[in-house]
Amino acid sequence: MPIRTSLCDLFDIEHPVLLAPMAGVSGGSLAAAVSNAGGLGLIGGGYGDADWLMREFNAAGDARIGVGFITWSLARQPHLLDLVLDRNPAALMLSFGNFKPLIPRIRDNQTKLIVQVQTMDQAGEAVDLGVDAIVAQGTEAGGHGGARATLPFVPAVVDIAQGIPVIAAGGIADGRGLAAALALGASGVLCGTTFFASDESLANDNAKQAAICGSGDDTERSSVFDMARGLDWPSDWNLRTIRNSFTRRWSTDMDGLRENLAAEQARFEAASTTGDIDTAAVIIGEAADLIRDREPAQVTLKKMISQAEDGLRCLNRLVEPIKKD
Amino acid sequence: MPIRTSLCDLFDIEHPVLLAPMAGVSGGSLAAAVSNAGGLGLIGGGYGDADWLMREFNAAGDARIGVGFITWSLARQPHLLDLVLDRNPAALMLSFGNFKPLIPRIRDNQTKLIVQVQTMDQAGEAVDLGVDAIVAQGTEAGGHGGARATLPFVPAVVDIAQGIPVIAAGGIADGRGLAAALALGASGVLCGTTFFASDESLANDNAKQAAICGSGDDTERSSVFDMARGLDWPSDWNLRTIRNSFTRRWSTDMDGLRENLAAEQARFEAASTTGDIDTAAVIIGEAADLIRDREPAQVTLKKMISQAEDGLRCLNRLVEPIKKD
Repeated sequence: MPIRTSLCDLFDIEHPVLLAPMAGVSGGSLAAAVSNAGGLGLIGGGYGDADWLMREFNAAGDARIGVGFITWSLARQPHLLDLVLDRNPAALMLSFGNFKPLIPRIRDNQTKLIVQVQTMDQAGEAVDLGVDAIVAQGTEAGGHGGARATLPFVPAVVDIAQGIPVIAAGGIADGRGLAAALALGASGVLCGTTFFASDESLANDNAKQAAICGSGDDTERSSVFDMARGLDWPSDWNLRTIRNSFTRRWSTDMDGLRENLAAEQARFEAASTTGDIDTAAVIIGEAADLIRDREPAQVTLKKMISQAEDGLRCLNRLVEPIKKD
Repeated sequence: MPIRTSLCDLFDIEHPVLLAPMAGVSGGSLAAAVSNAGGLGLIGGGYGDADWLMREFNAAGDARIGVGFITWSLARQPHLLDLVLDRNPAALMLSFGNFKPLIPRIRDNQTKLIVQVQTMDQAGEAVDLGVDAIVAQGTEAGGHGGARATLPFVPAVVDIAQGIPVIAAGGIADGRGLAAALALGASGVLCGTTFFASDESLANDNAKQAAICGSGDDTERSSVFDMARGLDWPSDWNLRTIRNSFTRRWSTDMDGLRENLAAEQARFEAASTTGDIDTAAVIIGEAADLIRDREPAQVTLKKMISQAEDGLRCLNRLVEPIKKD
């Protein structure tokens, strides 16, 4: 019997696994692959590019997919919300910022609203505002995030969620992580790094290889790449990436980076174009140790589900005597 | 049927739960309470005070207990190792530093050796040196620790452990955390914050109350209290505590603290004596949200086991159809 949770009913999906809406990585092809495999794919709305968004929606074909936005960025470009809601996404996910003003428009469209949180205060607000699902994201996640770690954060959010499904994010990359998240009381998981090296991911090939070879030990949180990309992120969140020569040079000298910004931005952009990952950002999380193959996203998802099911059965043998037939 | 793992066989215990050897908090009474409840209590050897250690060993009575040391500190006072090994502890745990030179003396005594690690390199070394059990400690832990988070770190260590039991530490404070750790492939858990507010804990009463009222959101890692205590910790590790006026004043101005050290040390010591926790250190982890009662350690442990067993049975219903009798 496949694992089913309240999340499966909420989104009408087979497996309680969501693709994290990684900006520039989770395009229509990857989102469709995850949805077609029984999960829910979310396109990464990123910093808002209408043409890119529509192209990726089209690339998803007729797969049921959702989309995720960076809230503070979306608030500056509310037309993008209309654009996306007109496509009737399976869900809309908001992270990083004040989502309250955006709720009426989303509710008008009867679109399911997922809100990602990094603190107990944010979780409480999401509960009060009656969102459909809450992603409790741990600091081990790749990309932007906060300071709390997934394992103690998820049950604490579950305890205040008043029955709203909680989705665990950060550090979950295989069936063991999925089973652990369910044990913590989560109704499912949201995975980014897991699918970063998928065939369908839009990540650069060198970056995919780095994810496969890398370790969580090689990652760190900083704001150097946000500055290099000219993004004025609120200080509540920073970015987990693989440590490279660019982070080593600037992460402890942000003032120096600011003083050399034009030249360093140009150098960063050139590296991003050519796939020079010793300077460009490889935006993955601590789960890198568990990423070992470049494969179709469907294969990754099926392995995760199968491993979680086997794991739960094995764990049950710890508490139930083996029945002899 | 109670949960049994390889850890239960290794240490001849009923439940796969170890008390973290919290310096100044895990004394003989708390260690004995955890051992007598079916887990394994470890006295916190801390920075080494022979009289304190012997007093706490005596306070444990005839309970089978172990002891944990800060490796770099123990290396400066090797006589403490002899002192403790002469008491035939149930296990010796080493954390934070190069444990290799200490192995022969421990092996001579046939004492079980647990090594706590915070990086994959440290884990690999522990495997190579054939320790009896490895604690994979996440950054959400209270007290000293590193940068990796428990949820992705534990399965990565399990994958290289070559069958050596892996114990999850950091963020685990109830049966959900224990069940999740087992799902990740751990053979058991090591808990500190969970038992910090126990009746038997040596923590100050105000600190216990802060643990019960506090949230993981209120904690942070810094080195201010190590400096205030005059401890020259290697920079690989820092200390998670509840944020208070002392950390707010100095955590971003360590040079300023160094310049005012004598006065600030005196102020810190006075606050520690009187239990003024707005200046003294409350050394707990992110699991604070899950700590709700001051109670005997035995009650906490029994609740954890019972919740984990119930949780595993519930999870099994996700994958096995309900059998009708």
